Amino acid sequence: LLGLLESRQIPYGVLTNGTVRPPAAYTLRLRESGLRVPEQRMMTPSTVAADYFSARGSKTIFVLGVEGVWKPLRDAGLQVILPSDDDADSETADAVFVGWCREIHMDDIEAACNAVWNGAGLFAASMVPFFATKSGRALGSSRAISAMITSVTGRRATALGKPSQHALRSAARRLGCKPSELVVVGDDPELEVRMALRGKALAVAVRTGIAGADDVEKLATKDQPQLSLTGVQDLLEILQRIL
Amino acid sequence: LLGLLESRQIPYGVLTNGTVRPPAAYTLRLRESGLRVPEQRMMTPSTVAADYFSARGSKTIFVLGVEGVWKPLRDAGLQVILPSDDDADSETADAVFVGWCREIHMDDIEAACNAVWNGAGLFAASMVPFFATKSGRALGSSRAISAMITSVTGRRATALGKPSQHALRSAARRLGCKPSELVVVGDDPELEVRMALRGKALAVAVRTGIAGADDVEKLATKDQPQLSLTGVQDLLEILQRIL
Repeated sequence: LLGLLESRQIPYGVLTNGTVRPPAAYTLRLRESGLRVPEQRMMTPSTVAADYFSARGSKTIFVLGVEGVWKPLRDAGLQVILPSDDDADSETADAVFVGWCREIHMDDIEAACNAVWNGAGLFAASMVPFFATKSGRALGSSRAISAMITSVTGRRATALGKPSQHALRSAARRLGCKPSELVVVGDDPELEVRMALRGKALAVAVRTGIAGADDVEKLATKDQPQLSLTGVQDLLEILQRIL
Repeated sequence: LLGLLESRQIPYGVLTNGTVRPPAAYTLRLRESGLRVPEQRMMTPSTVAADYFSARGSKTIFVLGVEGVWKPLRDAGLQVILPSDDDADSETADAVFVGWCREIHMDDIEAACNAVWNGAGLFAASMVPFFATKSGRALGSSRAISAMITSVTGRRATALGKPSQHALRSAARRLGCKPSELVVVGDDPELEVRMALRGKALAVAVRTGIAGADDVEKLATKDQPQLSLTGVQDLLEILQRIL
């Protein structure tokens, strides 16, 4: 499928909701499983955040999370403050951004709360409570950690990853089109299908992930994708006929 | 004041909302500042929790927190499971209890969520968002950490410390009286005064802590303490006259 898109010069991007790794590391893992995705086509909630903050003129971002969370922001020229910085002064931050993070110290939460009390916005990579892994259900750490900050400050977190419209708009900007001109292919009706329908993009559900055919059929009519396929192979066959 | 109570054999207890230390360590610190409080008179949210779980027949408690949090439960004969236990099996727990804890790993939050999904109740030492310390505002860690578990499981935490009625009932049981027979003396209208009024105990506000006279006066009529004093010295003078 990606080969076809490349050969026909159809712009595409790959958007994961993970911030465990920087985009380059995700492309490396995809290559190991046989998929060649150029690094600039790889998007994460952190690349969405970089676009979002840059567009809004937010300059200083206090980040809770591993390298995969903060590196895309720093690469985009934003000033990243980390709890580990010697002269970390979270109180000057324009925004707090929470991503993947498995171990957290209350000092860092206090620093984030102080930033929010000083007017910083609160943003999370994803508000998904948990996701499937090889070893079972894993906690969505950006949701959990931002819940601590919300609990203390009363300020709700804005999610920047899927299914937010910020993610859809970031993808559209990178591909040089309007959100409504996108075709969104995904295996989670709660994430990709919802994001696409809200943004008037074309939603294509594939049943290769956590959602089976039943899950897609059970959706309310207004939440149904325009196309429901068994897998991306079906999509390739369709595209080969029409392109 | 304590000397007067001791000499007249009037039962009293000291209830802090902290679970940083076990009761014995709090009595030691009070002694250092000149106050002699026998250990069995010292209460914390963890001694309240020990009473609460014992009364309800909860046997196995998964605890997130430092020694001050779990020791009173273990001392009361409850089976305490800690994340650090080699064979920690949180899924069998009857309850999850969250107290003072400055550093938390997502593995522990996942274990707590699994316990809750398996039917365990969720309890927090305190739901106070922050409290005053010598070096400024500090985060109420049991509120923050239980907010993570609530965010993922949807289960709300029950607070066992002040101003909960569980705390008032635990104090009454320990002192051998009904909650409505207690005199509650405290410096925080949100905690001690509220707890006392809800339980029909006599509420005595003193202005030695975070609340000034203004704060007490600003309370709605129904939230007013029966007695508002400058400090415990005033209470001592009153008691010396009437006892």
